[in-house]
Amino acid sequence: MSNQGAETAVRWGPPYLLYLGSATDDLSIKTARGLAYWRAEHCLGQHRRPDCAVTLGLPDLGFAQAKARGADTMVIGAANAGGVMGPEIVADAVAALDAGLNVVSGLHHKLRDNADIVAAARRNGRALFDARAPGPNIPVGNGKPRAGRRLLTVGTDCSVGKMYTTLALERSLRARGHAADFRATGQTGVLIAGAGIPVDAVVADFISGAAEAISPARADGGWDLIEGQGSLFHPSYAGVSLGLLHGSQPDAIVLCHEPTRQHMRGLPHYPIPELVACMEANLAAARLTNPAVRPVGIALNTSKMPTHEAQAACGRVGALFGLPCQDPVTMGVEAIVDNLVACFPG
Amino acid sequence: MSNQGAETAVRWGPPYLLYLGSATDDLSIKTARGLAYWRAEHCLGQHRRPDCAVTLGLPDLGFAQAKARGADTMVIGAANAGGVMGPEIVADAVAALDAGLNVVSGLHHKLRDNADIVAAARRNGRALFDARAPGPNIPVGNGKPRAGRRLLTVGTDCSVGKMYTTLALERSLRARGHAADFRATGQTGVLIAGAGIPVDAVVADFISGAAEAISPARADGGWDLIEGQGSLFHPSYAGVSLGLLHGSQPDAIVLCHEPTRQHMRGLPHYPIPELVACMEANLAAARLTNPAVRPVGIALNTSKMPTHEAQAACGRVGALFGLPCQDPVTMGVEAIVDNLVACFPG
Repeated sequence: MSNQGAETAVRWGPPYLLYLGSATDDLSIKTARGLAYWRAEHCLGQHRRPDCAVTLGLPDLGFAQAKARGADTMVIGAANAGGVMGPEIVADAVAALDAGLNVVSGLHHKLRDNADIVAAARRNGRALFDARAPGPNIPVGNGKPRAGRRLLTVGTDCSVGKMYTTLALERSLRARGHAADFRATGQTGVLIAGAGIPVDAVVADFISGAAEAISPARADGGWDLIEGQGSLFHPSYAGVSLGLLHGSQPDAIVLCHEPTRQHMRGLPHYPIPELVACMEANLAAARLTNPAVRPVGIALNTSKMPTHEAQAACGRVGALFGLPCQDPVTMGVEAIVDNLVACFPG
Repeated sequence: MSNQGAETAVRWGPPYLLYLGSATDDLSIKTARGLAYWRAEHCLGQHRRPDCAVTLGLPDLGFAQAKARGADTMVIGAANAGGVMGPEIVADAVAALDAGLNVVSGLHHKLRDNADIVAAARRNGRALFDARAPGPNIPVGNGKPRAGRRLLTVGTDCSVGKMYTTLALERSLRARGHAADFRATGQTGVLIAGAGIPVDAVVADFISGAAEAISPARADGGWDLIEGQGSLFHPSYAGVSLGLLHGSQPDAIVLCHEPTRQHMRGLPHYPIPELVACMEANLAAARLTNPAVRPVGIALNTSKMPTHEAQAACGRVGALFGLPCQDPVTMGVEAIVDNLVACFPG
């Protein structure tokens, strides 16, 4: 991987040092956690500030220490609301560059827009890459029906397991011999897949066009598995979710949910939507561009529940919808894939 | 008005020369038409290429001719799908700058991103302004209930009269002595109002935040009248409409519709949504951030209908909803404002 709009041809890539900064909230390190899980072999350590309250269980390394152990690139994988790059992150990015690391980031605020960081990259001959910077020439969505099969993960909220579920579906379908490709729509997915478009970072008029662009017509009978974003019921981000739903033209959707979530992420005054209403709203919106859309399963994130409660929750929700319901982390996605394959034979 | 990120302090403003380019479609000149209507006193001519098939009825002027007659600024008011700036527009913008005019634009592609245009502005000491360039520091939407009264226009499609209706409501409320402010969300509105945020041009994660920013809490009992964009049923742009709906937290909505439209704008394969379903979908989505939202009227764009059919259509649609239904252009908006004031007394 090389840096964007590169003045230099410096390439970046694994091994990675995962920067957690001052994160105090498990959800805010989902970029770092995703990379550590799906590309464990590429992650050799984590960097935490003294007030950091979370861990990925990787060795804690300073910048020079990580470089000495062979790290190539530091991944800024902890996000604030809005993806702001605070002064601590800037100082640490400069220090990492001065230690000889390349720096890549999934924040809304771009490395390349910060003069101190750009200067540090130049003086050290290091690469910068902003995973949330969409490429040029994203088209306006046209809504035209296109060939191929597409599955989109949707959610009751942000950060409920849509990316994980999508990657797990890809792994399962491939293991069964089906052609299947994860289509990344977020910064972590882009870093994992090495391709995709960060849909929440595109200009608003081009949301559905971005979804169309990452899942073009395909004729091999395989599946595009499109990473969902946000929720139709999240007052901050629902526009992204709707554009993604329209552009994806999904044949199948999987609803993702975290049963212990008390309120919409970041918004204590907003309750989590009721599951059936959420599914119905997603299907109703999806029908605009694909009237034949079908729900094929429910993915529950039960990481905060005891095992017996998790099993009971999956049983209850599965019965409610008459669909397979699993926690992809602890139970896999085989029942959902069984149903997907049964619903779309041949 | 001065140019953005100004290297020079050149100011731009009326009198305007409205650039129609090679437009062949009445809808594609809605920026120019809006300015010509709402700021007629500021528009002294139009510039059309030989293949232009539409007119605003203004004098046809060359660039030097317009300058000689006192024009200060050329407004590029004809948009392609996606707001692309083709080579003809670039050449004409350079020629206008060379003739001594400032140049402002409502296209997605920015004047300031084109090296030839920037060079021409510099060598002539002229200003450039991109009305679709959102300012910095737009917040993420937070969905918190806020004081004040807000009305949002929504639509069955793009370009059905939402901006016109919103401006007409402002004019009527002000004439009755109410505090009321048009809040612009599109390039034409921004050019007319001299303020606002082009919501379709913000980064997707900030759509609802932009809507919150342009209609902050107010305590004077007055109305923020927010210009709607797109349609929940337009596969290209629905994400913008949904984010705007959530961020606006409207107390009242007015549904705008063009009865003779055969299909969704730009998409021959998509029918216009049924009116009641469209209203219901907008109300359902709006309730997420304002459960008390009420529909107060319907605005029909009957410009392509004979008068008796227009009257009949308003009667029919009004009866269907039990709400006042008017064409703001030919019938005004007094019945809608009567109902608004009755629904929200005091």
